[in-house]
Amino acid sequence: MRLRLMEATVESLVELGWAGTTTTVVSQRAGVSRGAQLHHFPSKQALVVAAVEHLTDRRRDDMRRHAEGLPEDDRIRGVLEILAAQFVSPVFFAALELWVAARTDAGLRESVGPLERRIGRETHAYAVELLGIDESRGDNRQLVQATLDLVRGLGLAASLSDDTKRRATVLDSWAAVLERELDPS
Amino acid sequence: MRLRLMEATVESLVELGWAGTTTTVVSQRAGVSRGAQLHHFPSKQALVVAAVEHLTDRRRDDMRRHAEGLPEDDRIRGVLEILAAQFVSPVFFAALELWVAARTDAGLRESVGPLERRIGRETHAYAVELLGIDESRGDNRQLVQATLDLVRGLGLAASLSDDTKRRATVLDSWAAVLERELDPS
Repeated sequence: MRLRLMEATVESLVELGWAGTTTTVVSQRAGVSRGAQLHHFPSKQALVVAAVEHLTDRRRDDMRRHAEGLPEDDRIRGVLEILAAQFVSPVFFAALELWVAARTDAGLRESVGPLERRIGRETHAYAVELLGIDESRGDNRQLVQATLDLVRGLGLAASLSDDTKRRATVLDSWAAVLERELDPS
Repeated sequence: MRLRLMEATVESLVELGWAGTTTTVVSQRAGVSRGAQLHHFPSKQALVVAAVEHLTDRRRDDMRRHAEGLPEDDRIRGVLEILAAQFVSPVFFAALELWVAARTDAGLRESVGPLERRIGRETHAYAVELLGIDESRGDNRQLVQATLDLVRGLGLAASLSDDTKRRATVLDSWAAVLERELDPS
């Protein structure tokens, strides 16, 4: 029932945005009584933060499975595809609603700030692992950070219109840049 | 009076976010009567779209003036600083509120979509001009796109917490990458 509530929350954030996502809408979508919902999540804030956190973790597990099938050659391009896909996924658009709402809501920012930093750290560590590099060599650390800022920017661009074609050419040339610039371990 | 209304709108979007920005709040902040406001902007949508459009154009004029003082050596790093500054400015955070609201509001998206594409094209052309490169050479076009996606991603990261130090190191190493990778004209 917790999981159903969290899934309904992310769906509601994606379809209706922050303002349209109310605890009433979520309990209806999840088919859960108001009382049961309040038992699990006493407020909208508790619900949305838990939902974005849990589904981001689950999405990372999915990515891990995708990564197992990466070919040895052109591996970097495949890694970029996996990373970029995270930033055009429903849970990214749900998180975007949450981050933007938190910018002007101090109470929300108190829980969203630490969550955003944790997700940022974990995504960074995951990118390093996927690329199979040693972060302490050359500019590797900054290149990984730039890569994640890049795919975050691409995700934001994709939130308003279909940006698939442009994204593919940007990632192609970015993969070539990383191929030349990363210091292999 | 139009300008005062548009400035009050951007300030309100930055401080109160999309939901907190009402035509009443804006007319109070601007010190303009409701009637006069309705005469200039018949709806919240007309007001916010005009405000973000006008202030983005004005901000680009400011950037142009900054760019005149760029030194010849280490020019690329200076250009990156100017471009990145656009994406941590009040008008970017106001635009972010608008883009995100438009994602789940089809009516708003009809005016925001074309505006977002126009700003994107103009910022791209402006970046090419600042860098002083020929877009048709090598991967220059994709590198400029990647640069703008990168600074957009940095802007989003800066919306929740002070990210100044990390941003500087990412831009330092990105400038070095562009120095090596751009095909000079």
